[in-house]
Amino acid sequence: EPRLHEKMGIDKRFRSIGIISDRIGAGPQIMAADEAVKATNTEIVSVELPRDTEGGAGHGCLIVFGAEDVSDARRAVEVTLKDLDRTFGDVWGNEVGYLELQYTARASYCLNKALGAPLGRAFGLILGAPAGIGLVMCDTALKAAEVEPFAYCSPSKGTSLTNECFIMVTGDSGAVRQSIISAREVGLKLLHSMGGKPQTSTVSYI
Amino acid sequence: EPRLHEKMGIDKRFRSIGIISDRIGAGPQIMAADEAVKATNTEIVSVELPRDTEGGAGHGCLIVFGAEDVSDARRAVEVTLKDLDRTFGDVWGNEVGYLELQYTARASYCLNKALGAPLGRAFGLILGAPAGIGLVMCDTALKAAEVEPFAYCSPSKGTSLTNECFIMVTGDSGAVRQSIISAREVGLKLLHSMGGKPQTSTVSYI
Amino acid sequence: EPRLHEKMGIDKRFRSIGIISDRIGAGPQIMAADEAVKATNTEIVSVELPRDTEGGAGHGCLIVFGAEDVSDARRAVEVTLKDLDRTFGDVWGNEVGYLELQYTARASYCLNKALGAPLGRAFGLILGAPAGIGLVMCDTALKAAEVEPFAYCSPSKGTSLTNECFIMVTGDSGAVRQSIISAREVGLKLLHSMGGKPQTSTVSYI
Repeated sequence: EPRLHEKMGIDKRFRSIGIISDRIGAGPQIMAADEAVKATNTEIVSVELPRDTEGGAGHGCLIVFGAEDVSDARRAVEVTLKDLDRTFGDVWGNEVGYLELQYTARASYCLNKALGAPLGRAFGLILGAPAGIGLVMCDTALKAAEVEPFAYCSPSKGTSLTNECFIMVTGDSGAVRQSIISAREVGLKLLHSMGGKPQTSTVSYI
Repeated sequence: EPRLHEKMGIDKRFRSIGIISDRIGAGPQIMAADEAVKATNTEIVSVELPRDTEGGAGHGCLIVFGAEDVSDARRAVEVTLKDLDRTFGDVWGNEVGYLELQYTARASYCLNKALGAPLGRAFGLILGAPAGIGLVMCDTALKAAEVEPFAYCSPSKGTSLTNECFIMVTGDSGAVRQSIISAREVGLKLLHSMGGKPQTSTVSYI
Repeated sequence: EPRLHEKMGIDKRFRSIGIISDRIGAGPQIMAADEAVKATNTEIVSVELPRDTEGGAGHGCLIVFGAEDVSDARRAVEVTLKDLDRTFGDVWGNEVGYLELQYTARASYCLNKALGAPLGRAFGLILGAPAGIGLVMCDTALKAAEVEPFAYCSPSKGTSLTNECFIMVTGDSGAVRQSIISAREVGLKLLHSMGGKPQTSTVSYI
């Protein structure tokens, strides 16, 4: 509907939109949508992060794809949903909190639009909740490898008031991976020291 | 207490205030308070929307009425509480999310102050959570009838970071009702396709 | 890590930091950290309040201490954790909501940085959730004794969108205590009238 397009600030040439909406998680959806943008003839119209997770410490997510053709919009949604199993692989949680680690060798337009990731370069997300765990992980990540932190976010800075700290890094892809792996190790130990053994709901990919 | 009046920015002539405060819902309370303002000698001092719903996707609500006389303030609270059964009538939910539909033929000062509704004109609210459901409903609402959308809200725009999309419309009262009814039908189907049959806790009024 | 220091805006001379992070409560942690700052050679780097309480109506907390020496940072965290039993003493709750009352004869740097409390003077916090209960308590507090309110906060003003109203007062220490005690009495009655008998998880200290 044209007036809704206008209110939403969507380019008129997009006659179709694809919608990804969830209550739990934002990072995995953004990562998966980034793959979808690479694979389809769509663009990212908007990425918004409510304060949600069904009473948990983090975000939910609303991603809107724009496409000139309805089949492209549909395809982008399909690719995203299919990739979520992978991108939830390094979300580790227990009753105390959770970690989220994400990695790609080449960030595309969704990561760029949503999180400011440099286009075409390696991207790493290192996040922990409650925020104190995330802060220690950020420190570990930067000590572990020669990476370039392009953003640091905390409850009152760059988040939707979530109980999280995270850092986003770029640089040489090997260094980015190493930085993530080291921070994950420390984060898992911290989380485990406060509660049960942290689990991933799917399979770790980093 | 005068210094509290001052800190709250309340007009000095209001010697009494009436308070409506809840953890679940904002729309039904605002609708009911709008009836109370029509029926009593009070004004709306403030409407604030915390991010709440006891871990759910939406808002809670704090409405303050101002009155020169304590009986007016009390009466406004009574009218509001009595009307809530009706205004919760088109809040439909299941384990996945919820819809909220509201309609009045004549918006008054509370809807105007809280949501920017044009005074004295028909008002419709079309809302869905998680936000993706709301977005589809907004589109349906505008296609279904010749209504005028005066505001579109989403997780990072016009809400307290809730996981909702909604649109507010005005126009011919028949068109506003038609727009709401069509969006409700689509919203109920979407919500049902993801979980149990959506229920209202009272009785639908639109 | 120096680049993290920089992103966080931490003074370079702090080679160590101490971290207090939780999902439930901010006031008790800030009060306890205030004692820790008095007792140790540390400063408060930052206090951030996510919208949390595990689905409840209030805040979580992230406090960062800065210290030149790691033993000072560690000591500040120890003092804070040890004092939490006391500072949770006047957090009273039931299934409907909660009250929080805090008092110190001498506010120090954490209360000053986090909440704007005048340094070295008596400090009182009077808070209720849902917000309507807090608003009545604020009114009672100011009527009960000659105290000076230096801040009033509500869902959309001075909070992280929590469902709380609170007032912070300073003045003569006896008056501040009297103001808190009167507001607590009213708050407990209100909360009890809506649900079970409000309980504290530790022992009241005011």
